[in-house]
Amino acid sequence: MADDPLARLTALLGRLPGIGEKTALRLALWLAKADPSLRAGLSDAILAVGKSLRACSVCCDISTTSVCKICSDQRRDSKILCIVAQPQDRMAIEKSAAFRGRYHVLGGLLDPLAGVGPAQLSTGVLLERLRAVPGQDPIEEAIIATSPSINGDATALYLARLLEPLGITVSRIASGIAVGGELEFADATSLHRAIDDRRPM
Amino acid sequence: MADDPLARLTALLGRLPGIGEKTALRLALWLAKADPSLRAGLSDAILAVGKSLRACSVCCDISTTSVCKICSDQRRDSKILCIVAQPQDRMAIEKSAAFRGRYHVLGGLLDPLAGVGPAQLSTGVLLERLRAVPGQDPIEEAIIATSPSINGDATALYLARLLEPLGITVSRIASGIAVGGELEFADATSLHRAIDDRRPM
Repeated sequence: MADDPLARLTALLGRLPGIGEKTALRLALWLAKADPSLRAGLSDAILAVGKSLRACSVCCDISTTSVCKICSDQRRDSKILCIVAQPQDRMAIEKSAAFRGRYHVLGGLLDPLAGVGPAQLSTGVLLERLRAVPGQDPIEEAIIATSPSINGDATALYLARLLEPLGITVSRIASGIAVGGELEFADATSLHRAIDDRRPM
Repeated sequence: MADDPLARLTALLGRLPGIGEKTALRLALWLAKADPSLRAGLSDAILAVGKSLRACSVCCDISTTSVCKICSDQRRDSKILCIVAQPQDRMAIEKSAAFRGRYHVLGGLLDPLAGVGPAQLSTGVLLERLRAVPGQDPIEEAIIATSPSINGDATALYLARLLEPLGITVSRIASGIAVGGELEFADATSLHRAIDDRRPM
């Protein structure tokens, strides 16, 4: 099979997350028939993404420079920090334009069954950031923006306890019924959360 | 965005069939963190699949040689031909080991709305193959193995009429309730087909 380029490409594509055997074959056949310039571009982009991407030394987000664009943007509020699990979450929040502070990317969620503990996340770098450095604006508030799942909740609880002694306001993003969602079609857990976290008005 | 390797890879991955914007981003981030040897291998395999793959000059299947392995295998029955829409279908039939003859790959199904007519399929090559060549075993039977869908049925009907004057036995693969499937959960169309195509026993 190693000398068959189609089988080799199918096997490699099948190692991507969420790509099964049949999808890998379909993609490989599509690529075999695709425009040569697309194949060349994709081949090159796959190499480039490994060469030029690194973790931002401040927020641990994925970046092409040693300090990422958001961390080096002086117009952003450095007093408020949004803690997310992964780069995609930071991108989603940026897209919503709901936040103008800085981020911290944990690199995952606590997941004891998968062997992910605090040491596997960027909590050490986070604690360093939060300790006030003379001459720099201290971080006054941390918003924990982990998803409302078992691991997301556990990570939020762990972080809240970790940050408590630092005297920083710690909050968590709200969860409940999605905006625009129909109450009758909402799942029981979201409804439960929506009622437990009800707000005075 | 062009100077951002992650955005570039995401955009290119998003052009693959069935890969949406979010999946493309997830794959790009996964590739960014993946083992460098996997990236190098995938990058190389994408280039190789374009360089070394071509259409078999006999059956129009995807092949690394000008005549594919099946067409050049003398142990296979050259009197019976199985006509399929795409290489994946040929692979599925080969995996089932239900057929020991030769194949012909149409390169798609008739789809007037998408602009796919007989000229876009390899029907010309098929007719050439079916015309008896002196000194070669003539093809005696053609099995049309297109899927039981609107376009698959239309293609089968078109081919049956096309091959009729050649004096070849033309058949179509059976469709109905999937083997091992429960009657109560079968869809109405499959049930309809199963009853229409009932066999004496």
